[in-house]
Amino acid sequence: MLKQYLPISQWQKHYNKNTFNSDIIAAVIVTIMLIPQSLAYALLAGLPAQVGLYASILPLVAYSIFGTSSTLSVGPVAVISLMTAAAIGALGLQTIEQMVLAASTLALLSGLILLLMGFLRLGLLANLLSHPVISGFITAAGIIIAASQLQHLLGVTTSGHNLFQLLLSLYAQIEAINLITMSLGVLALALLWWVRSSFLPLLMQLGIKQKTAQIVAKTGPVLVIIVTLFISYFFDLEALGVAVVGHIPTGLPSLHIPHLDSAVFQQLISSALIISIIGFVESVSVAQTLAAKRRERISPDQELIGLGMSNIASSLSGSFPVTGGFSRSVVNFDAGAKSPAAGAFAAVGIALAALFLTPLIYFLPKASLAATIIIAVLSIIDFSVIKRTWQYSKTDFSAMLATIVLTLLAGVELGIIAGVSSSIILYLYRTSKPHCAQVGLLEGSQHFRNIERYSVDTCPTILTLRIDESLYFANARYLEDKVYDLVARSPQIKHFILMCPAVNFIDASALESLEAINERLADSQVKFHLSEVKGPVMDKLSCCHFLDQLTGEVYLSQYDAWQALHDNS
Amino acid sequence: MLKQYLPISQWQKHYNKNTFNSDIIAAVIVTIMLIPQSLAYALLAGLPAQVGLYASILPLVAYSIFGTSSTLSVGPVAVISLMTAAAIGALGLQTIEQMVLAASTLALLSGLILLLMGFLRLGLLANLLSHPVISGFITAAGIIIAASQLQHLLGVTTSGHNLFQLLLSLYAQIEAINLITMSLGVLALALLWWVRSSFLPLLMQLGIKQKTAQIVAKTGPVLVIIVTLFISYFFDLEALGVAVVGHIPTGLPSLHIPHLDSAVFQQLISSALIISIIGFVESVSVAQTLAAKRRERISPDQELIGLGMSNIASSLSGSFPVTGGFSRSVVNFDAGAKSPAAGAFAAVGIALAALFLTPLIYFLPKASLAATIIIAVLSIIDFSVIKRTWQYSKTDFSAMLATIVLTLLAGVELGIIAGVSSSIILYLYRTSKPHCAQVGLLEGSQHFRNIERYSVDTCPTILTLRIDESLYFANARYLEDKVYDLVARSPQIKHFILMCPAVNFIDASALESLEAINERLADSQVKFHLSEVKGPVMDKLSCCHFLDQLTGEVYLSQYDAWQALHDNS
Repeated sequence: MLKQYLPISQWQKHYNKNTFNSDIIAAVIVTIMLIPQSLAYALLAGLPAQVGLYASILPLVAYSIFGTSSTLSVGPVAVISLMTAAAIGALGLQTIEQMVLAASTLALLSGLILLLMGFLRLGLLANLLSHPVISGFITAAGIIIAASQLQHLLGVTTSGHNLFQLLLSLYAQIEAINLITMSLGVLALALLWWVRSSFLPLLMQLGIKQKTAQIVAKTGPVLVIIVTLFISYFFDLEALGVAVVGHIPTGLPSLHIPHLDSAVFQQLISSALIISIIGFVESVSVAQTLAAKRRERISPDQELIGLGMSNIASSLSGSFPVTGGFSRSVVNFDAGAKSPAAGAFAAVGIALAALFLTPLIYFLPKASLAATIIIAVLSIIDFSVIKRTWQYSKTDFSAMLATIVLTLLAGVELGIIAGVSSSIILYLYRTSKPHCAQVGLLEGSQHFRNIERYSVDTCPTILTLRIDESLYFANARYLEDKVYDLVARSPQIKHFILMCPAVNFIDASALESLEAINERLADSQVKFHLSEVKGPVMDKLSCCHFLDQLTGEVYLSQYDAWQALHDNS
Repeated sequence: MLKQYLPISQWQKHYNKNTFNSDIIAAVIVTIMLIPQSLAYALLAGLPAQVGLYASILPLVAYSIFGTSSTLSVGPVAVISLMTAAAIGALGLQTIEQMVLAASTLALLSGLILLLMGFLRLGLLANLLSHPVISGFITAAGIIIAASQLQHLLGVTTSGHNLFQLLLSLYAQIEAINLITMSLGVLALALLWWVRSSFLPLLMQLGIKQKTAQIVAKTGPVLVIIVTLFISYFFDLEALGVAVVGHIPTGLPSLHIPHLDSAVFQQLISSALIISIIGFVESVSVAQTLAAKRRERISPDQELIGLGMSNIASSLSGSFPVTGGFSRSVVNFDAGAKSPAAGAFAAVGIALAALFLTPLIYFLPKASLAATIIIAVLSIIDFSVIKRTWQYSKTDFSAMLATIVLTLLAGVELGIIAGVSSSIILYLYRTSKPHCAQVGLLEGSQHFRNIERYSVDTCPTILTLRIDESLYFANARYLEDKVYDLVARSPQIKHFILMCPAVNFIDASALESLEAINERLADSQVKFHLSEVKGPVMDKLSCCHFLDQLTGEVYLSQYDAWQALHDNS
């Protein structure tokens, strides 16, 4: 029973020296990537740099115990860091201590929500996010993230959580730009861009084996960070007004449960819910993609528990919400990670960095971290998907457009809420007008066909409507309308038959509509019949009084109905 | 073009002396009912009594021009008045003038929303409300309305917009109860109860014809009001501490457009949206029920415009949101109203009351108005539907329960929002796990059946999954999961066939899932095929690159697929 929630109890049985060696190599590479990333994402979230390191120690250990993916790399990620910044920014806090406390409260709430969803097996809730809404959201969030980093690249201070506010506030500061910071920032951007496109070919020209070269190339951004770090140290750029990361407390995070203030709780709970769902969807997509490549399986419900425990671990470390990140997980996968233990080994790496590297990090310019973030999010901004969605479906495109526009102009939370609601409403709208056809008997057969498409036999006192969808609240009223309309236009009819070969279920709203139709047809002296009702639907109808009240009959086949009523009339 | 929005241009052509006579009789009876009702509902909305009369003049005229139902009686109704009270109460206003202004702003917003929905033909938006959610909401609102009126019945002052607050505040005032007010209130309740059950039999015993007796009986509550009015006047109850309606300005409302304050606008817009949708759903249900009895038709989209214009007229009169009411419309119908003109005639009646009856109304005890409201809402509180819904469908019951509990404990707006969201989420949840089955060839036939139910022929290298639902965002991930699960458990397979005989559409999310399945199966060296894809779905797929990337083929029939792949493997 308990083992169900502890995947580690399964994979540790087969753990051996080979798996250990593979995991260690992957962990070293991931650690090298994760150090600058975790500092950068803390910056993006508007928090002190060490908080990023703290988010990359215990959460990774927690995931390696409770997670099901052997290659997912959990920790700070760009979009969730941006959402954290927006959620905390809305509180209007004064001190950095209050902001760190709010961030760890957010991680705690998010962890508890994920755990609850996991125990209730609500992994399917993530389905409320349609693909176009997610890609639209990620692209828009990527643009906002890039815009929010321009301040560090230019040595100014901007504020705001949507594109409009950010650009306006940047424009107001245009004269305060620090040219040295800007030069360093542009240099870092250029180097990172070069590394992305030309480092791998260079390594291979140098005769390094393709697989090794690929892995080394992924650590390229870290080399750029180190280069700018040394430039900053050597020329004492801090004295020239270039913002550096500065003093970071050396050592591991102290553990404590964040004090839960009920006012802050109420303000953060909806942000925590959105962060949890977005984080989960992102993480599960990555985990599934990688698992499928090795014909492995991940369990979405157990992933909720793994990510929930990671977030609680992050909160206890005084840090912010985490989830599985795309780029790091791919590196982890390529570097050959064989089990979740690789994540725990990377945690050890980050812990060593927190213990010994912090004096060095002092001189790291914020501009080069900002450049790292900008280059990283460029890969998640994808305009081609907008065009493809437009071509494939105008409905999906509308939901995507609503998401993008609102995310850019009104912020991440309103953007995702608008996207989810519009995709749901558009879907309900689509199914609220089900296909239905008035049918007649195809001469010489027992088949009934649409009277508008076929030359069929009809009878002035009998009207048959075939409905091609399950009946539920969104289309119940449409059915009523349709029936009343048909009956009002056919004054001669005495029998109305609803033919239900494609009705898989009838919910309580539709049942009431059927009762209303039955009653109103009775008021007009028209009998209401059903035909071709499926077994399970019939079972449901039998347990209420509808069939007793029905003025007509239920016929097994439409032909039976036709024969019985046609002869009588 | 314009005529489409002016139903009056149609029915006035056939207007003659007979219709006029019928309409006049109905109008007199409705006017008699409407005078105390409009005063009572103004009281319920927390507004001065005359506002109720103003809501019953121009809005009725507007509906008779723009509405499509010949019998709907528009004006103040109980549930909308309660929602108005809740919306205005949330603003924390100090003076009664501000509250009247806010109410007329609410009516204006509601009118504009209804008009907009009408022009955009969004009548179907009302489908988001499932029947169980509406009945749960109406029952819970009825309970809150009754509880909110206890204060007037007992001569105390309570506050709050949910059951908990109301009862708590009543309990705190228990020693302040005015015994004379209470006696009068209980007398009014008893008389109203008696009138409801025994007035009609009495009239018929007196030899009055059944039809006339039925109509006269409906005016019974007004007689009770008159009796208590005279008791109050005769014994000068006001001097004994009984609250009376008091001074009402004589005359017609002066017309002016409410000043739109953008802060108030933002605070009221969501309430206005909810009030519009609830009011529309209630009104259209009543109008449809009555229209069907005469084989008439109403147009839901034009009804939006009719109700929108009525609310704008109400706002211009300085009054609160209105809609079609159930009990008055039934009386209007029974009394023989033949055209929307009956409503305009009733408006004349109310205008005469506002001009000449206000001195009399001074002495009307608030307790008897409260008793009228309580007796009126008793008929909308319906517990039997709760039981019936429980028996028919546990899913619908859950949505209903959420609505009732949240309406009672957190207020009307949160209640209806919870109801709508839970019914939508439960529906998506139901369709998010579509029925699907692994199939094999039924020996000696070309038919494929579920391998778990039939003894069928399968092949270790081919796996076929039949899916029985359209593919869209809520079930796309489930399909992916299902496919990966099946493939991970069948290491030998080389071909995966998705059989789509029941797939009516594939949205962009599902398309991406199919692309992901294609890619991931390719990573596992499994070819991905489709079979029995419907024409329209195939057309859609052809306009994107999916078919080019597909590692396998699209087969017209599953048997073709089987033959082609079975022979090769």
